[in-house]
Amino acid sequence: MIIIGEKINGSIPSMAKAIAERNEDYIRGLAKKQADAGAAYIDVCASTAADIELDTLKWLIGLVQEATETPIAIDSPSAQVCAEAITFCNKPGMVNSVSMEGDKVERIFPVIADTPWSCMALLSDDTGIPKTAEKRLEVFDTLMEKAAHYGIATERLYIDPLVEMLCTSEDGIAKITVTMKKIKERYPTIHLTGGASNISFNLPVRKYINRGFIILAMNAGLDSAILDPLNKDMMGLIYAAEALLGQDEFCMEYIGAFREGIF
Amino acid sequence: MIIIGEKINGSIPSMAKAIAERNEDYIRGLAKKQADAGAAYIDVCASTAADIELDTLKWLIGLVQEATETPIAIDSPSAQVCAEAITFCNKPGMVNSVSMEGDKVERIFPVIADTPWSCMALLSDDTGIPKTAEKRLEVFDTLMEKAAHYGIATERLYIDPLVEMLCTSEDGIAKITVTMKKIKERYPTIHLTGGASNISFNLPVRKYINRGFIILAMNAGLDSAILDPLNKDMMGLIYAAEALLGQDEFCMEYIGAFREGIF
Repeated sequence: MIIIGEKINGSIPSMAKAIAERNEDYIRGLAKKQADAGAAYIDVCASTAADIELDTLKWLIGLVQEATETPIAIDSPSAQVCAEAITFCNKPGMVNSVSMEGDKVERIFPVIADTPWSCMALLSDDTGIPKTAEKRLEVFDTLMEKAAHYGIATERLYIDPLVEMLCTSEDGIAKITVTMKKIKERYPTIHLTGGASNISFNLPVRKYINRGFIILAMNAGLDSAILDPLNKDMMGLIYAAEALLGQDEFCMEYIGAFREGIF
Repeated sequence: MIIIGEKINGSIPSMAKAIAERNEDYIRGLAKKQADAGAAYIDVCASTAADIELDTLKWLIGLVQEATETPIAIDSPSAQVCAEAITFCNKPGMVNSVSMEGDKVERIFPVIADTPWSCMALLSDDTGIPKTAEKRLEVFDTLMEKAAHYGIATERLYIDPLVEMLCTSEDGIAKITVTMKKIKERYPTIHLTGGASNISFNLPVRKYINRGFIILAMNAGLDSAILDPLNKDMMGLIYAAEALLGQDEFCMEYIGAFREGIF
């Protein structure tokens, strides 16, 4: 699993406080801890007012790069901000994210076309989040046409099929797992990713829904997730699922992660 | 999920002590708690010396029946003991278990043939536990011929495909999930069951492996398990998996179980 560490995000109250107070040690510490726990990318999201977002990102990315060699996932709702923040990074990372909404793809894909940067892509368009698996796959097909046009290799793409709340679903996560399996069939080297917690919105003891979802999504091809790598229960379950799914011969990775204290 | 509560088993040290000390309150208490937590059967296993097993079972079954209306799963390695213990039960329950080893099937199936009793059946034979999915399915086919011969309806059968240790597997649980899916395809009304903890033998933090296994096995058709229904983390994950797998419209069962304090 390619873990994108989610903790440096201004929408989390403790991080908003650290950003407001310019608590550099706290931010560097969380970057280091997430990298040590196995994050492949450190997500950095300012979540500030638009006029100070770019400056805040520049400062945050600088702090993360002081603390760890792990690449950055630049996280902003603005494609323009993402494109500009690329210049703050000392090595290739990930843009989080594009979708088929507005001109996001047209703003980001040309910037990363001839680079090794990766990109997360959400399966939504100007009509919002599609209601059916078929419609999501149509959005995906349009996205892949754009990726091909700009010469962006499929292994640089992290597709987020956009999980909706389980509490309003009549058929569980079937829509998402069908979408994921079809995407992996068509493009075996593409990555499938997503947040681990939207699914449980409005339900009690959300951790059970989140954990069950990650395991079933891994079974359907999920190979990346945006989550808290310091959550030992979640990390333990992910390593367990990899072993159960035959991705970890003789459980060597599971045993190694245990010995390193990841869970 | 049809939960078979595993706690009244003399191979558990605290239960062995309660049996040796004739601690009736403790045993009745565990029967009641497991029933309240949603167990559909209370497994009763004496695990004593052979000469006192039947008397111990009679006493244990009596205690359980004083404490709860939930039916008994008679758990003994001896088919003869299982057959005799049926007479101690005040309502139909489950025999745990037969297999294609020795004359187990020939001793149990005739006894339960014209009754509503259920029966757990392990997919092993006189050569032991088959090494491949194909061999397991051959054992299964022979078993189903016997069930047909004695007129035992498929919905009364709980098939345990016998999970082996993950730590010695090169391909995770693929062998088991393939077996399970094929069995469910052939007999949609049959039950698939198993223990939740053999899988994690010899591995650290066994709970992650056990929990991941239950979820992936449910995805492959598992609709029953022998486990501790007082383990709230396990029960919460099972209810979550049912909702995620589309077996719980709008999460009503999940929310109800939370309100009842099951997790």
